[in-house]
Amino acid sequence: MKIVLIGANGTIGRAVRQELEQHHEVVSAGRRESDIFVDITSPESIREMYLSVGEVDAVISATGETYFGPFKELTPQTNDLSINSKLKGQVNLVLIGQHFIKDGGSFTLTTGIIMEDPIIGGASAAMVGGAIKSFVESAAIELPRGIRINNVSPNVLVESMDKYGPYFQGFDPVPGSKVAKAYVKSVEGAQTGKTYRVY
Amino acid sequence: MKIVLIGANGTIGRAVRQELEQHHEVVSAGRRESDIFVDITSPESIREMYLSVGEVDAVISATGETYFGPFKELTPQTNDLSINSKLKGQVNLVLIGQHFIKDGGSFTLTTGIIMEDPIIGGASAAMVGGAIKSFVESAAIELPRGIRINNVSPNVLVESMDKYGPYFQGFDPVPGSKVAKAYVKSVEGAQTGKTYRVY
Ligand SMILES: NC(=O)c1ccc[n+]([C@@H]2O[C@H](COP(=O)([O-])OP(=O)(O)OC[C@H]3O[C@@H](n4cnc5c(N)ncnc54)[C@H](OP(=O)(O)O)[C@@H]3O)[C@@H](O)[C@H]2O)c1
Ligand SMILES: NC(=O)c1ccc[n+]([C@@H]2O[C@H](COP(=O)([O-])OP(=O)(O)OC[C@H]3O[C@@H](n4cnc5c(N)ncnc54)[C@H](OP(=O)(O)O)[C@@H]3O)[C@@H](O)[C@H]2O)c1
Repeated sequence: MKIVLIGANGTIGRAVRQELEQHHEVVSAGRRESDIFVDITSPESIREMYLSVGEVDAVISATGETYFGPFKELTPQTNDLSINSKLKGQVNLVLIGQHFIKDGGSFTLTTGIIMEDPIIGGASAAMVGGAIKSFVESAAIELPRGIRINNVSPNVLVESMDKYGPYFQGFDPVPGSKVAKAYVKSVEGAQTGKTYRVY
Repeated sequence: MKIVLIGANGTIGRAVRQELEQHHEVVSAGRRESDIFVDITSPESIREMYLSVGEVDAVISATGETYFGPFKELTPQTNDLSINSKLKGQVNLVLIGQHFIKDGGSFTLTTGIIMEDPIIGGASAAMVGGAIKSFVESAAIELPRGIRINNVSPNVLVESMDKYGPYFQGFDPVPGSKVAKAYVKSVEGAQTGKTYRVY
């Protein structure tokens, strides 16, 4: 398959790429050092990505920025970071991509455990996860031409404990290699509308 | 209690108002014919609402516009209607209101059954419902001073079948008076982080 992987240089993206490259053609996409450049906060940039990459069998989003911080400091402005990037960015990859992806193709988006197991400082990111999960369930019943859509909800990654550890006290981190397998399941399987929890 | 009810003239709002007015002081808020004028798509307007209403014991949002239509016609632009109104509008009522509401006060937001029981044409609205549900669960663990937050997830209302009926074939509509009781439970009870399903 030809797969476009947005966020291929990220912690999750690198693990997914390593797993998929063994059997597929993976086109990396991101704002830096990628086969194709895309900024998911811009619908125009997403459209250009699809035009330049050509027909693909699968679109994987392992990206999306979110705001972490105390709830009392969360404002309409800081919350917009999460909405513009991880929410609208990922949703727009689907809304625009539905008109480009091959028959029987798949979209795989990324959510995260805190959408259903809240942590201090995570309200904005949790909000986005809940949005993507419900969006995926709805999109799955309407996508035409056998196109599928799922989301992967990872626990905090072992590889991210340096960065996110203090927020995830008491969570049992999962290795990126295990998280990557859920993306493979979504791409190579036949299910749709699912949330693959890697907890 | 003194309760500000945003969307008081709407189908759900009218039912909630009727129920709560029996025992509380209800201040209606909306863009038209209300005690206080507010446009929830504007953070500045929300701030002005809180400044002019004074201290309140409860904030109820029975409002938020969403885009309904076939998934293939959903675009980044039409999807923004739902994000700017029902998602950001309701979330910003909390982010700004947390600094104004009384000790032990409550926020009650509105989601809807389709966030977990998808319908054709409802992906954008479902997305917002899922976002609000996860946001509420996260906010509940951080709000200080005994402040609570819940959401009510109504099935389609009997009173809305004229308008939404074609989208909700096979759903068993619930009367507004029954939906209103869930808002009363949220305001007068002691629970927090809950989704009150009226299905
Ligand atoms: N790491 C975890 O423990 C964990 C757990 C659960 C969920 N998640 C979620 O998984 C996703 C990825 O997490 P991660 O830790 O792998 O992130 P990461 O290491 O920061 O990588 C994110 C990648 O996305 C790209 N990116 C960021 N903004 C972009 C934009 N606007 N347009 C295009 N590409 C963009 C970045 O590359 P460029 O800078 O080159 O664009 C980067 O390669 C996030 O949504 C995160 O919330 C992560
Ligand atoms: N009705 C149903 O069957 C049903 C079922 C499940 C969930 N819901 C959800 O419940 C909520 C209310 O539904 P409804 O049917 O009662 O709606 P509605 O009858 O259209 O009433 C909405 C109310 O909100 C106000 N409003 C709209 N946009 C506003 C804004 N930007 N700022 C301030 N006020 C605004 C409107 O008054 P003004 O025009 O004066 O501002 C109106 O009074 C929606 O989120 C809907 O998705 C409804």
